[in-house]
Amino acid sequence: MNTNFQKVLNEIEKEIQPYFGRGKIATYIPALANVPGGKFGIAVKTVAGETFSTGDAKEQFSIQSISKVFTLTLAMKKIGDDLWKRVGKEPSGNSFNSLVQLESEQGIPRNPFINAGAHVVADCIVSSFEDAKAEILNFVRSLVTNKEIQYDDTVAISERDTGFRNTALANFLRSFGNIQNAVEEVLDVYFHQCSIRMNCLEVAEAFLFLANEGMLPGTKTRILTKRQVKRVNSLMMTCGLYDAVGDFAYSVGLPGKSGIGGGIVTVLPKKFTACVWSPELNSAGNSLVGIEALKRLTTKLGMSVF
Amino acid sequence: MNTNFQKVLNEIEKEIQPYFGRGKIATYIPALANVPGGKFGIAVKTVAGETFSTGDAKEQFSIQSISKVFTLTLAMKKIGDDLWKRVGKEPSGNSFNSLVQLESEQGIPRNPFINAGAHVVADCIVSSFEDAKAEILNFVRSLVTNKEIQYDDTVAISERDTGFRNTALANFLRSFGNIQNAVEEVLDVYFHQCSIRMNCLEVAEAFLFLANEGMLPGTKTRILTKRQVKRVNSLMMTCGLYDAVGDFAYSVGLPGKSGIGGGIVTVLPKKFTACVWSPELNSAGNSLVGIEALKRLTTKLGMSVF
Amino acid sequence: MNTNFQKVLNEIEKEIQPYFGRGKIATYIPALANVPGGKFGIAVKTVAGETFSTGDAKEQFSIQSISKVFTLTLAMKKIGDDLWKRVGKEPSGNSFNSLVQLESEQGIPRNPFINAGAHVVADCIVSSFEDAKAEILNFVRSLVTNKEIQYDDTVAISERDTGFRNTALANFLRSFGNIQNAVEEVLDVYFHQCSIRMNCLEVAEAFLFLANEGMLPGTKTRILTKRQVKRVNSLMMTCGLYDAVGDFAYSVGLPGKSGIGGGIVTVLPKKFTACVWSPELNSAGNSLVGIEALKRLTTKLGMSVF
Amino acid sequence: MNTNFQKVLNEIEKEIQPYFGRGKIATYIPALANVPGGKFGIAVKTVAGETFSTGDAKEQFSIQSISKVFTLTLAMKKIGDDLWKRVGKEPSGNSFNSLVQLESEQGIPRNPFINAGAHVVADCIVSSFEDAKAEILNFVRSLVTNKEIQYDDTVAISERDTGFRNTALANFLRSFGNIQNAVEEVLDVYFHQCSIRMNCLEVAEAFLFLANEGMLPGTKTRILTKRQVKRVNSLMMTCGLYDAVGDFAYSVGLPGKSGIGGGIVTVLPKKFTACVWSPELNSAGNSLVGIEALKRLTTKLGMSVF
Repeated sequence: MNTNFQKVLNEIEKEIQPYFGRGKIATYIPALANVPGGKFGIAVKTVAGETFSTGDAKEQFSIQSISKVFTLTLAMKKIGDDLWKRVGKEPSGNSFNSLVQLESEQGIPRNPFINAGAHVVADCIVSSFEDAKAEILNFVRSLVTNKEIQYDDTVAISERDTGFRNTALANFLRSFGNIQNAVEEVLDVYFHQCSIRMNCLEVAEAFLFLANEGMLPGTKTRILTKRQVKRVNSLMMTCGLYDAVGDFAYSVGLPGKSGIGGGIVTVLPKKFTACVWSPELNSAGNSLVGIEALKRLTTKLGMSVF
Repeated sequence: MNTNFQKVLNEIEKEIQPYFGRGKIATYIPALANVPGGKFGIAVKTVAGETFSTGDAKEQFSIQSISKVFTLTLAMKKIGDDLWKRVGKEPSGNSFNSLVQLESEQGIPRNPFINAGAHVVADCIVSSFEDAKAEILNFVRSLVTNKEIQYDDTVAISERDTGFRNTALANFLRSFGNIQNAVEEVLDVYFHQCSIRMNCLEVAEAFLFLANEGMLPGTKTRILTKRQVKRVNSLMMTCGLYDAVGDFAYSVGLPGKSGIGGGIVTVLPKKFTACVWSPELNSAGNSLVGIEALKRLTTKLGMSVF
Repeated sequence: MNTNFQKVLNEIEKEIQPYFGRGKIATYIPALANVPGGKFGIAVKTVAGETFSTGDAKEQFSIQSISKVFTLTLAMKKIGDDLWKRVGKEPSGNSFNSLVQLESEQGIPRNPFINAGAHVVADCIVSSFEDAKAEILNFVRSLVTNKEIQYDDTVAISERDTGFRNTALANFLRSFGNIQNAVEEVLDVYFHQCSIRMNCLEVAEAFLFLANEGMLPGTKTRILTKRQVKRVNSLMMTCGLYDAVGDFAYSVGLPGKSGIGGGIVTVLPKKFTACVWSPELNSAGNSLVGIEALKRLTTKLGMSVF
Repeated sequence: MNTNFQKVLNEIEKEIQPYFGRGKIATYIPALANVPGGKFGIAVKTVAGETFSTGDAKEQFSIQSISKVFTLTLAMKKIGDDLWKRVGKEPSGNSFNSLVQLESEQGIPRNPFINAGAHVVADCIVSSFEDAKAEILNFVRSLVTNKEIQYDDTVAISERDTGFRNTALANFLRSFGNIQNAVEEVLDVYFHQCSIRMNCLEVAEAFLFLANEGMLPGTKTRILTKRQVKRVNSLMMTCGLYDAVGDFAYSVGLPGKSGIGGGIVTVLPKKFTACVWSPELNSAGNSLVGIEALKRLTTKLGMSVF
C-alpha cells in the first residue's frame, strides 16, 4: 500500500494546480485574511503506522471548525450521553450560523458541528474543568507527537472582536438556558479552540483514533469507546461539511470535517485518516482545492465507505 | 365633556374589579416582579387642557416599551426619513423578540416597536448625540410638567444582566451592520429607556402632542410635523401591541402602545390621550385589566377611530 | 361638503396623470392581463346619501380580493364568533399567499384577508348554504342598487386553471382539517367571488354599511352589529393591504381593502366610503395610481382616522 | 460467511420480540391501517449470490417511500445530471412533507427522498415515458426474479383520496414551474409507486445493484454507473431516513431507505443488502422493530461503513 499512497498524493498535487484562484480566502476574520491562497498540503496516516504527505503538509494553519471534533470528543469522554440532552444529532438543513432553527427548536442546536452546537459543547467543557482552555490544549497534544501545539491568540481575539453572529448565537442559547456559564467565558473558549494551529500531518495524526476504533494506534490508550467512535464518525458523515454534506458524501465518500481556515480532515474507519489544507474556499465555505484533492484521493485509491 | 369623562373613569374602576388575579406579573425582570398585582390607575388628558384620573394614576411605574415611542420621536426629529432605511414600517407577525424574520430580511427589523427595531432606533440616537441617555431623559421631561422624571438604574441593570435575548438581537443586528455603535452602549441606552418611571398622568401628558397634530398643547412648541404624527399614530395602530394589534384595534379602536410593566397608552387624534396601568399581563404580554379598562373607555364614550 | 368632494376628486384626477405607466398590470391571471393600464375611476358615497365620482367610475372591473370583505361579512352574519376558531385576526407579516406561517400555526390562517383565510371563509359559506355561489351574489346585490352584478366565468375559470398556489393552500388547509368540504368546491366558490365585476360607484355603495354602523343607509336594514362592523373595519386597517398595511395606514389613514384587479376601497366610519380603480399595480400588488389618489383624498379633505 | 449470517438473523428474531407493541402502525392511509402489528421479516442478499432470511420475509408489504430509490434510479438512467437542476442533494432538516423550505428555496426540493423531491422525480418520469406507471413497474421487475410485482390499486386510490398534503406539495411545486405535467397525473404515478407490494427477499434482491457497483449480480447488465451508485448510496446515507438520518447512521451505520409501510432496506457496498419489515413505527416514522433488528445486524456482524 505504501508506494501507492505516496504516488497518489504526488499525482493529486499536480492535478489540482488548475484549481488555484477559483476560490476565495475567508476575509471575515481579519487575522486569517493574509494567508497566501496558493498554499496546498496533504497528509495521510494509516492505522498501520505509515505516513505519507506532500506540499505544505508541515505548515501550520488555523484549524477553526475542525476543532469541534476535539471538543466534542472531550465532552463525550467527560459527560457521556448527558451531552445529547442539550444538543441534537441530525443535519440542520440551514446555514452553519443560522438562528432560525434554534428559535423553533427552543435552544437545542441540531448537532455539535453547527456553531450553536459547538457553543453548547464548549459550555459543557467550561462546566467540567477548572481551566477549560488548558484542558482542550492538553487533550489535543495528547493525540499527537508534537507537544507544542498552541492557540493563536491574535486570531482568537480577532474573532472575538468581530464575532457578532457568534455572540448573538451564544446569548440566544443563554436565553434558553442552554448555556450555563458566562457567555463571555464560553465564547473565549470557543474562539480559542478555533484558533489552534496545526499542520496536515498533525491533524491526520490527531484523528487516527477515529480510524482505529477509539484507540491511539500503537498504544493501549483508549480515547473513546467503539460506540462513541461510531457516533463521531457518523456525525461527521451527516453533519461535518455544513450545507454540503450531501455533495461531500458523494464526491469523497468519507466522514469528514472542514474548517474555514481551509483544512479538511477525513477518516476511513479501520484504514487511514487524511488531512488536506488549502485556504481558498468555495461558496459553501469549504476548501475548494481541498475538495478536489480528496475526491481524487478516494477515486484513485478506490477506497471510500460507499 | 368634563362630567362625562370623570364619570366614565369611575365606572370603569368599579367594573374592572373582577379581572384582578387573572393575569400574571412579568417575572423575567427580577426588579419588576415585586410590584403588587392589584394596582390600577387611569388618566385622560384632552387637547383642550382637561385632566381626568382615578385609582393609582399618580403612582409611577416602569414604562418599558412605551419608551419606544419617545425614542422613535427623538430619532425622527433628529435624522428624519433616513431612519426608514434601517427599520421597516410594517407589522411583524412574529413575537416581539423573534430573530427569525431578522435573518430572512437581512437585519432590517420590521418596525420600530419590536425589540430589534427599538435597538436600531437607540443606535441612531447614540450616533446622533454625545450623551444619548441624558438626551432621552431631557426629551421626555420636555413633554411633561414634572421635570424630575428619572431612570430606574436598578431595573436597567437588572434587565442588562438577564437580557440575553436582547443581547442576542443586538449582536445579530451588529453582524448585519445595522447597529453601528458598540453593542454594550446601545443596550445600555435601550435598557435605560425602558426603565423610565412615570405615572399615568405623566404618560398621558407626554403623548398629548400626538393627539394635537405634533404641537405641545397650549404652547407654540412643535415636536413633530403633522405627517410625522400620522406616521407615529399609524405605527402604533398597526404595530403597537406586539402580536395583539388586531384584537386591540377591534376592542379598543385606538392607536396605542403597551409595556410589560403593565402600562398602555392610547391616542384619539384631535381629542385626547389615555394611559392605564395595571401590572398583571395577559398571555400576549399586555395589561389584562388595562385592556378591559380601555375597551370600556371607548365603548362608553362612543369614541374610537372606527 | 358637496362642492368640496367633487372639487377634490377633479383635482386628484389631474394630479395623478404623471403616475400612469409606473406600475404593472397583474399578468398571472390571463383574463385580467388585457385591461388597458390607463384606466382610472374614483367614487365617494357619504352616509348622508351624497355621491361623487369622476373618470371611469362607471366601468366595471374584477374586484378580486375586495370580495373577501363580502364573504367575511356573510360568514359573520351566518355563523358569528365561531368563525374565529378557524381563522385569526392578526396581521401576518408574510406574503398574502405564503404557506410558511400556516405550517407553523397548524392550519389556522392569520386573518381572513390572506388567501388561506379567505379559503376558510369560503368553506364556511359552502357549509352554511345550499348554493354558496348564488348566496354570495345575492348578498352583494342586496347591498347595491344594481341587481345585475355578475360573476365573470371567464376570469374564474382562468384563475382555477392557473391557480396552483391557491390549490396548494386549500389542500394544505384540508390536510389540517380546516377545510371541511371538497377542495374543488371551495376553490370554485373562491375563484368566483374574486371574479365579481363591479364599478367604483357600486363598490363604494356596497361598503356604505361599514361607514354607517352596520345599517344600509336610508333603510332599516341591519347588515352587521356595531361590534361586528368595528371588527371588519379594524381588520381592514391592520390586514387589508397585504404587506403594505403600515404604509397605507400612514399615507391614507383609513381602513381599506385592495384587489389585484386594481381596485381599492376605503371607509371613514360615520362619514363616507371611497373606491378607486386603476389597474397598474405597485410592487406590493396594490394599485399604484389608486394609492396616490387616496393619499390626496384624505390629505385634501383633512379627514382620516389619525 | 454463510453460517454466520443465518445464525445472526435467527438471534435477531429472538431478541427483537420485546419490542413489539411499542410502535404504532401508520393510520393515515386507511388501506394500510389493517396490517397486523406483530409481523416481522428480514432478508439478506450478498453480492456473492447468497440469500438468508427469517420470519415473514416472504410476505409482501407496501414498500411506500422505498420506491423513491427505484424512481430516482430510473430518472438518473433516463435524464442523467439534468435531474439535479430540479432537485437538490442535501439533507433537509425539516419534516418529510414540509412546505416551508420549498417556499424559501423557490420550489427546488432539498433532495429526492422528501416527498416534494419524489414528486419532481415522478414528473421527470412522466415527461420521459409514454406510460410512466408501466415503465416503473417494468423497471422494478427487471431487478428481481419475481416478474409479478404489482401495484396495489386500493392503497394508491386510498392515498390519493386522503393525500391532501401531497396534493398541496405538488401544486406548490407546479406554481414554481418545477412540476411540468398535470398535477393529477404526477400524483397518480407517485401514489402508485408507493403502493408497490414486495417482500423482504424481493426488496433485498432489487437493491443488490447498489451493493454491486451498479451491475445486476451474476449478469452483465449495468443499471447505473459506479459514480451514480455512489450518488444514490450517499443520498440514502444523508437523506434516507427523514429526520432520523443521524441516528440511523450511528446506530446502523449503513445507507438505507425506509417506508411508512414498515420496510427498511440497507446497503453495505461491495458486500450485501438487507431488508427488514415490521409495520409498527417509531415517532420518526420508521419501523421501530426494524431499526432494532438492523442495529443488531451490523453490530453482530461487525460490519458497517464506520
